[in-house]
Amino acid sequence: MASRSTQILEAAARVIARRGVRGLRVEELAAEANVSTALIYYHFEDRSGILRHTLEFISDRAGRYTTRRDPDAEPLSPREELEQTLLLELQDTTEVRENSSAWGELRASAVFDDNLREELARATLVWVQEVAGLLGRVCPTAPAAALAASAERLTALLEGLSMRWLSGTLRVSRARTLMSEAIDSEADQLRN
Amino acid sequence: MASRSTQILEAAARVIARRGVRGLRVEELAAEANVSTALIYYHFEDRSGILRHTLEFISDRAGRYTTRRDPDAEPLSPREELEQTLLLELQDTTEVRENSSAWGELRASAVFDDNLREELARATLVWVQEVAGLLGRVCPTAPAAALAASAERLTALLEGLSMRWLSGTLRVSRARTLMSEAIDSEADQLRN
Repeated sequence: MASRSTQILEAAARVIARRGVRGLRVEELAAEANVSTALIYYHFEDRSGILRHTLEFISDRAGRYTTRRDPDAEPLSPREELEQTLLLELQDTTEVRENSSAWGELRASAVFDDNLREELARATLVWVQEVAGLLGRVCPTAPAAALAASAERLTALLEGLSMRWLSGTLRVSRARTLMSEAIDSEADQLRN
Repeated sequence: MASRSTQILEAAARVIARRGVRGLRVEELAAEANVSTALIYYHFEDRSGILRHTLEFISDRAGRYTTRRDPDAEPLSPREELEQTLLLELQDTTEVRENSSAWGELRASAVFDDNLREELARATLVWVQEVAGLLGRVCPTAPAAALAASAERLTALLEGLSMRWLSGTLRVSRARTLMSEAIDSEADQLRN
């Protein structure tokens, strides 16, 4: 069973994905999470604490669904592992739509709200390092700086494509094709 | 002198860049543009008309500052033309910060607001076609579908890098380096 604080963060991600960061009122969150506002303040202190913890929660959740593998399946090659980790962010499921919409919203609000910037930079860095690590297994002789640059580009491209998909400009199948070609191209460059 | 409707759209872009789409109230816009709310409704009908026209205005303005060239300078090569057009979106000036913050905000709101989607898709398409045209001058023998895919990736990457820069995750100089390497890599792939 999810703890009370997880239950609140799950509800916060749902509300942000549905109505945006500015649509998140503590009273509404309490109703959505089926808890009292006092319990929310007890766990997260204030609205800005809720937003920071929701960002961390969303980032951890994306880490889980992009690395989830069927335990009975053949082990993946490093190249397949990299591709899956990135392409699982472009799936038309409720979980991914909700998580990515909320992430895009939190990223967009950080343009106006300094309070989110540190947590956003931290979560982005963790993600970039994870992708750089996977790229390093695909191209073991590539220098660390080149792996980091490739990982920054692939993750920024994924954010860009994901926002186009969620905002109705791009079909998810097209986003996946474009992403997949970018992975090939970055891996080619790293090998040369 | 700017027309009254341009004056209103300039003010709307400023307000959205400062406080987000949800921070845009017609009364506040009237004060910022120094006009009456009646004049705003006369020109744009309703709040959703304001948002659609602001998106168009922002997109046209980006088209102007990314193609502005010194008339006395040497003409640019197709490769330089492409690079300038894209890198001029990553300049730490008030105009570009304001324009890109407002664009990111409108893109993020379109996740929740169907009303903006058509105009956003149109503006994105115009931009992708412009970049595909520039890529076609760099790589005249590349097939149209490959040019379109490269242009979609480069513009989506630019949106992703731009949001990271504006939300404080990435320095603008780093964003420019990553973008520049992506242009080289896409041009290389198109030539092979």
